[in-house]
Amino acid sequence: MRQAIIRLVQVAALLSFVGAATVLAQQSSGAAGGLVTFQEILEGLKEDGSKWLTFGGNFANHRFSPLTQITPDNVNRLQPQWTFQTATVGNFETTTLLRDNVLYVTGPLNVAWALDARSGRQIWRYRRELPLTGLTACCGLVNRGFGILGDKLFMTTLDAHLLALDAKTGAVVWDATLEDYRTGYAATIAPIIAKDKVIVGVAGGEYGIRGFLEAYDANTGKRAWRFYTIPGPGEPGHNTWSGDSWKTGGAGIWVTGAYDPELNLLYYGTGNPGPDYHSGSREGDNLYSDSIVAVDADSGKLRWHYQFTPHDVHDYDSTQVPILADLTINGQARKTVMFANRNGFFYTLDRTNGRLLVAKTYVNTTWAKEIDAQGRPILLPGQTPDEKGEFTCPDALGATNFWQPSFDPRTQVFYVTAREACATFFGYETPFVPGQRFTGGAQQLVNRADNRPSGAIRALDPKTVELKWEFKLPTPSRAGILTTASNLLFSGDNEGNIFALDSRNGKQLWRYQMGANLHGTSPITYMVDGRQHILVPSGTTLTAWALGDVPRGTGQN
Amino acid sequence: MRQAIIRLVQVAALLSFVGAATVLAQQSSGAAGGLVTFQEILEGLKEDGSKWLTFGGNFANHRFSPLTQITPDNVNRLQPQWTFQTATVGNFETTTLLRDNVLYVTGPLNVAWALDARSGRQIWRYRRELPLTGLTACCGLVNRGFGILGDKLFMTTLDAHLLALDAKTGAVVWDATLEDYRTGYAATIAPIIAKDKVIVGVAGGEYGIRGFLEAYDANTGKRAWRFYTIPGPGEPGHNTWSGDSWKTGGAGIWVTGAYDPELNLLYYGTGNPGPDYHSGSREGDNLYSDSIVAVDADSGKLRWHYQFTPHDVHDYDSTQVPILADLTINGQARKTVMFANRNGFFYTLDRTNGRLLVAKTYVNTTWAKEIDAQGRPILLPGQTPDEKGEFTCPDALGATNFWQPSFDPRTQVFYVTAREACATFFGYETPFVPGQRFTGGAQQLVNRADNRPSGAIRALDPKTVELKWEFKLPTPSRAGILTTASNLLFSGDNEGNIFALDSRNGKQLWRYQMGANLHGTSPITYMVDGRQHILVPSGTTLTAWALGDVPRGTGQN
Repeated sequence: MRQAIIRLVQVAALLSFVGAATVLAQQSSGAAGGLVTFQEILEGLKEDGSKWLTFGGNFANHRFSPLTQITPDNVNRLQPQWTFQTATVGNFETTTLLRDNVLYVTGPLNVAWALDARSGRQIWRYRRELPLTGLTACCGLVNRGFGILGDKLFMTTLDAHLLALDAKTGAVVWDATLEDYRTGYAATIAPIIAKDKVIVGVAGGEYGIRGFLEAYDANTGKRAWRFYTIPGPGEPGHNTWSGDSWKTGGAGIWVTGAYDPELNLLYYGTGNPGPDYHSGSREGDNLYSDSIVAVDADSGKLRWHYQFTPHDVHDYDSTQVPILADLTINGQARKTVMFANRNGFFYTLDRTNGRLLVAKTYVNTTWAKEIDAQGRPILLPGQTPDEKGEFTCPDALGATNFWQPSFDPRTQVFYVTAREACATFFGYETPFVPGQRFTGGAQQLVNRADNRPSGAIRALDPKTVELKWEFKLPTPSRAGILTTASNLLFSGDNEGNIFALDSRNGKQLWRYQMGANLHGTSPITYMVDGRQHILVPSGTTLTAWALGDVPRGTGQN
Repeated sequence: MRQAIIRLVQVAALLSFVGAATVLAQQSSGAAGGLVTFQEILEGLKEDGSKWLTFGGNFANHRFSPLTQITPDNVNRLQPQWTFQTATVGNFETTTLLRDNVLYVTGPLNVAWALDARSGRQIWRYRRELPLTGLTACCGLVNRGFGILGDKLFMTTLDAHLLALDAKTGAVVWDATLEDYRTGYAATIAPIIAKDKVIVGVAGGEYGIRGFLEAYDANTGKRAWRFYTIPGPGEPGHNTWSGDSWKTGGAGIWVTGAYDPELNLLYYGTGNPGPDYHSGSREGDNLYSDSIVAVDADSGKLRWHYQFTPHDVHDYDSTQVPILADLTINGQARKTVMFANRNGFFYTLDRTNGRLLVAKTYVNTTWAKEIDAQGRPILLPGQTPDEKGEFTCPDALGATNFWQPSFDPRTQVFYVTAREACATFFGYETPFVPGQRFTGGAQQLVNRADNRPSGAIRALDPKTVELKWEFKLPTPSRAGILTTASNLLFSGDNEGNIFALDSRNGKQLWRYQMGANLHGTSPITYMVDGRQHILVPSGTTLTAWALGDVPRGTGQN
């Protein structure tokens, strides 16, 4: 018993911040109550700050709030208002939802809460009875947040179910099985709502699953469709997998995508092909691994795909958060989807057809030289993992990853938490055993003078991938980003601080030491009783800060 | 594994608060460094605020700080400065020590840390390798804090050892075995230093131990003496235990006592006799259970004792914190020891000889009418636990308990976190099995209209037990108390708030919702860089607040 506790030496807390500024008159009208409509979610974040109803704030995943009460001038007066300790252990990657002054929070181990946004007081708590053994979530028993519609909340589970909870009580309304968790499936993704459907995907790329995206009827929990990320026999793309490798090819979907209601298309990034590193058993491009897929929300049919990393051998899951925006590129108005990829490249695509518009590296990248006119990477030599090891940048954790970027629609700047890190990749044959890890190798981080992993918040022009500014971090961070219309950017570092930057120039304006990282998610912001709040989940494995191995001079002011 | 985590659904965090006031000029000189001397500890808390070197602030256990920068006028500007998340689970009952701007913190499960007091940054972390099974700490895998002397820190362990750690590195310098933990012994007490000796006691009153107080040489870890709280054959008091009951009679010492360096006497409260409720096997007064013992610090010889609850049948451990002060009572100057007891009575004794000076109830008490002239309680009928159950006040958790009271030496007011609670006590025979619980019954809390447990911070005159004021709490709290020379009192409620009261009248001036209780300890206060800090451990089982069962109208403002 003790060992289990010691191994999971992690805590998790929610901190709510308000400015010390005078309370302004703009009273929130959020307490109106009633059922959550699809129209409301569609409208995204509004000036009254009364709602946060979907993962990215809006379906385009901007994580950009119109609120302006907290400004670059007063943000240094932000102070914690209350703390909620979750009393669970594990990485705390949830995007909190808000409606009617109630916060809906999921935590590690499929515990979830409804909290009074005024006080942090618990309204209800839900805990999933998980199986004692056999859970396969490769990289933390996490959950990334609720979806909401009507009177229901939707949560995926580590044993690969999708639950609907009564938003008033936390009681389970329906429980749908995605797949049998004993065969390597898990689910950590935050659902989104497309009209009357709940959209979810599965994790398990390290366990030889066959990935898919699914839609469930929000009312009944009945499955509406399933889109396999690996085509079956007879389907286009099936021949990009040699032999039977398609059956265990991975390509999970474990990070929430975007939705364009006009085109009625869902945009989701897909995970790595399995086994991750030794790829002799899966010759071919391995479609649709490491891709973005555009899927019709009604039918689940694939409209188009774009593969970022054909025949990946570096575990470059393309499970980052896609962001939608309409941009003018080379004088032409484009409906785009932007994607800062784990593989080191930033991509802007035409989201109507998947055509590549822009692709350039935004971190040090050695596996490919560039992306050619056909949208394929031009590979560089000596980058295939083998038994002696090959040194490649980025490392397997990537140039960025599952934490969320943000996009300012006014300035059309894309903000991403980037990593500069390289690793030695080893590849060797491993047998497939159902329910067991199936990676075909490993990476080894080499912490030497010329390879000290670092991080940065980078502001990029998605039309050119030009770096507008960067805020350097001494060690790589896994924090997502929130921006606001008052030119603020909120994120966190690997040393346990939440901080605010001026989003125009990257200047640091404020920070607070939370004692554990903002990890895999971003703060949200909203109005309660006329005051703008910043809410941040803080909880992770021990931080570099806590471990005492942070370079001197980078600590708390 | 999951079950273990879910059972211990607890987190723990340290919060450091500073006022928003301008930084004053009174720079701390605490960074001078060097070995901690006994003289320094003896001097207690000083005006420069640079140290907190012993459990109660001073050996008299006043928990009263001379600091005055934070005042009733500016305390409402206190705000969290940093949070340290311990990444351990369990009740967080430590009294933090401070020297040279370094905080020394023990946590649940015998994890411990040295932290930079400026930033909360970890300097080192220590974790005891505990046995996987067989730990018997009845009521939480807690630790109550370090002792310090020279270059060493002293910590008791759940497997009944006493460790000396190098204060600079956290490395173990010596490791002394108190007793075999497999026979029911554990240790959670914060050591104090008497000259060159480390004073500790053992827990296990629910496991049929024979309690003792011990002294170890601080340099070598060699045991200097042991005082058994239950006299052996031939010793005075042995005949207060029928048959062999003395061998398993309990009377642990698990809360830190006081020390009078002039008299060279240690004052420790002792635990309940075992079995707790059914007492047929232990006829007699059961000395020195439920007593205060005055023990010579050099020799470990008993100077005097006073038994609060002879032949206890309600689990009224007298393991509260004794406080020393010189008072004038009925016109006579007295060296006193004051004791707010779990059994409902407040006692003021002459600490030179153990003579009772004052004894009166300070909560609703039904087991005894009063304390007679000989110092014995006059029992009330119908209060002996039996198979049908007897309703008695206080309940077994008591009128107060292991959390610390405070004493203002200027005003001679005693502050205690009191509980108003009753229970039905059941008693029945249970066999003694080594290493197993041995309680002979149980109590049942009856939450009915006429028995709604509540709490209060009470300000008492220790010369009369007169109530000067009270600050009511909707549910009982387990928070200790800190007072300051600026007329502030800091404590916490059962709903997760830390609060500040005006110590002159009990008026609430400030509070903050920490998300978990201040439990079994108090904040400490000190100066860093010229600013007064309040440091508070926050971590416990789920709070009533978190569980959502707090009466309406008592929540956060």
